[in-house]
Amino acid sequence: MSDTVVRAGIVGGTGYSGGELLRLLLAHPRCKIQAVSSRSRAGEPVSGLFTNLRGRIDLDFIRPQLSLLKDCDVVFFATPNGTAMTMAEALLADGVRVIDLSADFRLHDHQVWQQWYGMEHACPTLLSEAVYGLPEINRAQIRAARLVANPGCYPTAVQLGFLPLLEAGLLKPDALIADAKSGLSGAGRKAETNLLYSEIDENFSAYHVDGHRHLPEITQGLQVAAGQPVVLTFVPHLVPMVRGIHATLYGRLLEKDVDLYELYRRRFSDEPFVDVLPSGQHVETRAVRGSNDCRLAVFRPQGRDTVVVLSVIDNLIKGAAGQAVQNMNIMFGLEETMGLGAVAMLP
Amino acid sequence: MSDTVVRAGIVGGTGYSGGELLRLLLAHPRCKIQAVSSRSRAGEPVSGLFTNLRGRIDLDFIRPQLSLLKDCDVVFFATPNGTAMTMAEALLADGVRVIDLSADFRLHDHQVWQQWYGMEHACPTLLSEAVYGLPEINRAQIRAARLVANPGCYPTAVQLGFLPLLEAGLLKPDALIADAKSGLSGAGRKAETNLLYSEIDENFSAYHVDGHRHLPEITQGLQVAAGQPVVLTFVPHLVPMVRGIHATLYGRLLEKDVDLYELYRRRFSDEPFVDVLPSGQHVETRAVRGSNDCRLAVFRPQGRDTVVVLSVIDNLIKGAAGQAVQNMNIMFGLEETMGLGAVAMLP
Amino acid sequence: MSDTVVRAGIVGGTGYSGGELLRLLLAHPRCKIQAVSSRSRAGEPVSGLFTNLRGRIDLDFIRPQLSLLKDCDVVFFATPNGTAMTMAEALLADGVRVIDLSADFRLHDHQVWQQWYGMEHACPTLLSEAVYGLPEINRAQIRAARLVANPGCYPTAVQLGFLPLLEAGLLKPDALIADAKSGLSGAGRKAETNLLYSEIDENFSAYHVDGHRHLPEITQGLQVAAGQPVVLTFVPHLVPMVRGIHATLYGRLLEKDVDLYELYRRRFSDEPFVDVLPSGQHVETRAVRGSNDCRLAVFRPQGRDTVVVLSVIDNLIKGAAGQAVQNMNIMFGLEETMGLGAVAMLP
Amino acid sequence: MSDTVVRAGIVGGTGYSGGELLRLLLAHPRCKIQAVSSRSRAGEPVSGLFTNLRGRIDLDFIRPQLSLLKDCDVVFFATPNGTAMTMAEALLADGVRVIDLSADFRLHDHQVWQQWYGMEHACPTLLSEAVYGLPEINRAQIRAARLVANPGCYPTAVQLGFLPLLEAGLLKPDALIADAKSGLSGAGRKAETNLLYSEIDENFSAYHVDGHRHLPEITQGLQVAAGQPVVLTFVPHLVPMVRGIHATLYGRLLEKDVDLYELYRRRFSDEPFVDVLPSGQHVETRAVRGSNDCRLAVFRPQGRDTVVVLSVIDNLIKGAAGQAVQNMNIMFGLEETMGLGAVAMLP
Repeated sequence: MSDTVVRAGIVGGTGYSGGELLRLLLAHPRCKIQAVSSRSRAGEPVSGLFTNLRGRIDLDFIRPQLSLLKDCDVVFFATPNGTAMTMAEALLADGVRVIDLSADFRLHDHQVWQQWYGMEHACPTLLSEAVYGLPEINRAQIRAARLVANPGCYPTAVQLGFLPLLEAGLLKPDALIADAKSGLSGAGRKAETNLLYSEIDENFSAYHVDGHRHLPEITQGLQVAAGQPVVLTFVPHLVPMVRGIHATLYGRLLEKDVDLYELYRRRFSDEPFVDVLPSGQHVETRAVRGSNDCRLAVFRPQGRDTVVVLSVIDNLIKGAAGQAVQNMNIMFGLEETMGLGAVAMLP
Repeated sequence: MSDTVVRAGIVGGTGYSGGELLRLLLAHPRCKIQAVSSRSRAGEPVSGLFTNLRGRIDLDFIRPQLSLLKDCDVVFFATPNGTAMTMAEALLADGVRVIDLSADFRLHDHQVWQQWYGMEHACPTLLSEAVYGLPEINRAQIRAARLVANPGCYPTAVQLGFLPLLEAGLLKPDALIADAKSGLSGAGRKAETNLLYSEIDENFSAYHVDGHRHLPEITQGLQVAAGQPVVLTFVPHLVPMVRGIHATLYGRLLEKDVDLYELYRRRFSDEPFVDVLPSGQHVETRAVRGSNDCRLAVFRPQGRDTVVVLSVIDNLIKGAAGQAVQNMNIMFGLEETMGLGAVAMLP
Repeated sequence: MSDTVVRAGIVGGTGYSGGELLRLLLAHPRCKIQAVSSRSRAGEPVSGLFTNLRGRIDLDFIRPQLSLLKDCDVVFFATPNGTAMTMAEALLADGVRVIDLSADFRLHDHQVWQQWYGMEHACPTLLSEAVYGLPEINRAQIRAARLVANPGCYPTAVQLGFLPLLEAGLLKPDALIADAKSGLSGAGRKAETNLLYSEIDENFSAYHVDGHRHLPEITQGLQVAAGQPVVLTFVPHLVPMVRGIHATLYGRLLEKDVDLYELYRRRFSDEPFVDVLPSGQHVETRAVRGSNDCRLAVFRPQGRDTVVVLSVIDNLIKGAAGQAVQNMNIMFGLEETMGLGAVAMLP
Repeated sequence: MSDTVVRAGIVGGTGYSGGELLRLLLAHPRCKIQAVSSRSRAGEPVSGLFTNLRGRIDLDFIRPQLSLLKDCDVVFFATPNGTAMTMAEALLADGVRVIDLSADFRLHDHQVWQQWYGMEHACPTLLSEAVYGLPEINRAQIRAARLVANPGCYPTAVQLGFLPLLEAGLLKPDALIADAKSGLSGAGRKAETNLLYSEIDENFSAYHVDGHRHLPEITQGLQVAAGQPVVLTFVPHLVPMVRGIHATLYGRLLEKDVDLYELYRRRFSDEPFVDVLPSGQHVETRAVRGSNDCRLAVFRPQGRDTVVVLSVIDNLIKGAAGQAVQNMNIMFGLEETMGLGAVAMLP
């Protein structure tokens, strides 16, 4: 296996996740980018859009065609929701493995999916096969998966933060709160006035308090970890910065006599990308910006029964493209950390 | 009373709250700034430091001396904690009324104060006389007060957000959560490396999760409103922007059959500076930046028993200098909104 | 004239200049906003779009119809280029005075206009009547004007900065350089990906170095001031901030024995909105943000023959809506500074 | 030479350049960080200050002692001006090569140095030996140097931008203008109020227009390139962003019949870190952020005789730590690009 070169295709390579995938895969020692597709920019050089890649990549965007993608070992979908579900089946039939960064295969229940995503699911039969690509939970299944549903950014930060407490049965299951804050790159590269610089800068606001699409995805994962139904209140906010998610998690402890730091440290001691800070230290988004790390800190203010967990990731790396590469590494028997060693720049 | 001119002094006029006080009072039709003191800049022109005031104010900073301040009708303290408590008594003795923007007189219990502020209180006898200057609760007492303790920024946003629910006895008192986010001006104009542009920009983090000084102040106020002890978890965060606080508040409803919007609307219908948004709308900090308004929005996600209240203010206006002017207006029988009509600039 | 109330209409009130006009006119003691039009939002409340105006304005957007606008004393166009030129004539015929914030009437020569703006001019006959609304040059003509072409933002900052030197014949006319930097609000509220927060934040770049539309407008003005042809190199840049223009101007002195500060001070001594800083001090955009001021500073580094002028304005105020109100005041015989007294907020 | 491991020491490792040096050297395949000194933090773990390096480096800061540094092959000084000049001689005597990121050895003339830096030079005898570490000019001398004076950030961007034109004798030598804009990290990690987030954000200003310390350094370099005296007007500005320098350069062409793009392309065709954009394209700072690249674009607006060059670098990489590593690679016979392959992150 030592000299495997994985031939990768990227469908929908013009958004921020697609751009990060390109940047990461170009530096990956065992991956070759075979094709990058974009309906709107077919024929244009990739480095014309991603000016940071000037001189590093020689490909042009192609139209998304199965015939050109079936020579790949793996195809990543960095498309808006609703595209991967129309193409995945054919690729799998051709023996191509699929990692979908969109939400198409994240929920097990296609009725729930349809309710939150407002369209009919084109391929519900694959929902049961798709493996939810959070390596810290599903590493073994990912290894064998043909189709990996790469987790959302908020779901990654929130699930990793709650995991140890829920797995240990230490939290009241009906009173979970995730107050999450995200940089703007999480909203994607969409020409919408409400994402303009002048609308976002010097402003802070919550959005979709009534219900964000990541809520069912997070709840589904937390229930698996808890082994029982949980009730989560999830409030996302926009931070005037480009990258980073900071999730502040609240739960009610059922038992107070527990060493929280030790619980977290032990749970993640073998995880290359989860770092638990010593008691009393605070996480910050910039310290993981550009890296595939999730950093966690656990507090019990005033020694009361409310636990506070701080969880940070780079939404485009561990929350999207980095985790996708991590999944690819696992699927193809490569070192899990390969190509993911970058350290955050400070400042 | 129609032609009263209030002669005002400002002690410690070189920080951000002091600067905002100057800007607001200069535009106030019934106030004359008599003196502005600063130990470090005595003798320098005020407009040299606050370049926005060039051509608008002709005063120099003076050293803080009682002899020069006792001709004032009111003295504002915009000093670090620990100063007002050494000067207030003498001013009151001379018939000068005092509005303290620092924390010196906000807590009733001087032992609690000493524990959180790490110094001995120089004037505990005045703590029982001092009126907590949140007009939406204490308007009548403020009118007659000699000494007003102007509330902290977080406490203003959090208390106004919880008030209607607590006063109506609708919340489980031991499970309140305030996840608060503040712009950097709240940290003041202090030469500290952790407040540098390069440390703050493109970063988001929580701080003092173990216990922030505003916790006892908020709890004290909430307990008065609730008429019983409450337990609050308070987690402050820094947002890479200059102005604005966004508090996201969580509580457990004891009764679900209540029209939350109506409850809030009614509670604040006579309040000139509290605006409750229609159901489903979200607040944003920029829409109150530069104004003395607090905006509130109430949600009950998925119709469950967790209520979410969003509360925004400009930390330097309603959270500091604007509220101080509002208190001055009340104390001197002026129109409460006088000099406070500015509308936020967008964008 | 003491109790005149000017009835104002705004066509195209949904952009940033339109929003600022609304905010300024609402606070203007002698102006009544009669109608605000928007093709796309007709029927919606104005305060739904401009959330800062909630509770301050009760109007709905209307469709732009002459019948509804002809009752106004003045109509402001805050529309994209190409609209005012199709409606101005009819309004003038009805006795309505027009202040156009777009570029339609700024150039005297319609052929030059067509070349830079890429469309045919619908109303070239009005170009000779239109008065260029820079009060510091054309105050008398503005007073009598039926149609005022409100200057562009860059042109305001650059012209005010060069004026004293050119009027005094002190600069080599063929070697003017204007290196100008603008905040993003200058680009307007357009749904374009290159204006997204994630594209602009933490980035700095020049644009249109080959030729920006404001070049002929600036050159036209400078030539009038100089009384001879001038050659200007104009390079605009985007700064990751919302408001503010900083123009750094370079020229070659023909005579070195001149007191530059004194020259500038004297030229603008009667101007209420132009402030010349003492020698050695630097201007900053934030000190004029939200105000109608232009601040200038003049340097001659190392005593050589290159002069450097720094000029700052708020692009939406002195560079757009504020200057439009200043023009309205002049046209209707009101105090020129009326409604324009706001001081910049710091920080 | 293939398995050389360079043992490196860093003196003054607590600033932004020091931090970047650490980050780059940790990822360098042929370098081992031997020691990192800091007077103020001696004894503390390096990763406590640079939280991005948690888990990547195990060293504690030491006090700066010659005895501990003389085992290094190379010592980098990332200290404030005035330190390297007191330690370099002793290190060189011990056979240690020195790369100084401060300004101590950048000027040939110690009198000029003293005039601009306001202190006496402690080691003027080394000024003639020190090699100015701009590889694009001095590669051969750097290879053999014992002492390299690493260029300043502005000087790197400005010199690379002017080089081809000056070397070719195409510019009027007495009319050079460099209008330069820098992110805040260039000002260093100093506890000064004027560098606070609240002072910098949403603001743009020029500084030191009367004369910035980088002026004599740039002029010295340009004169070597031009082979004659040049007169430069240099105006630096602060941009509200962390990283990046954008220099906009202006010159008067002595000859107009020249293919500027071709001139630049050819001059830098063998340079691994200088990239000339095709005619008509604009550079942007974010496309080089985190990389060691300098990107250039050349314009001649309206085909006149003023040439405009746009030059961007990451001030902490090509403008400091990256260039220092590039110099180390050259000095020790390593591949010049080793450890410097990082691509900018977008967005």
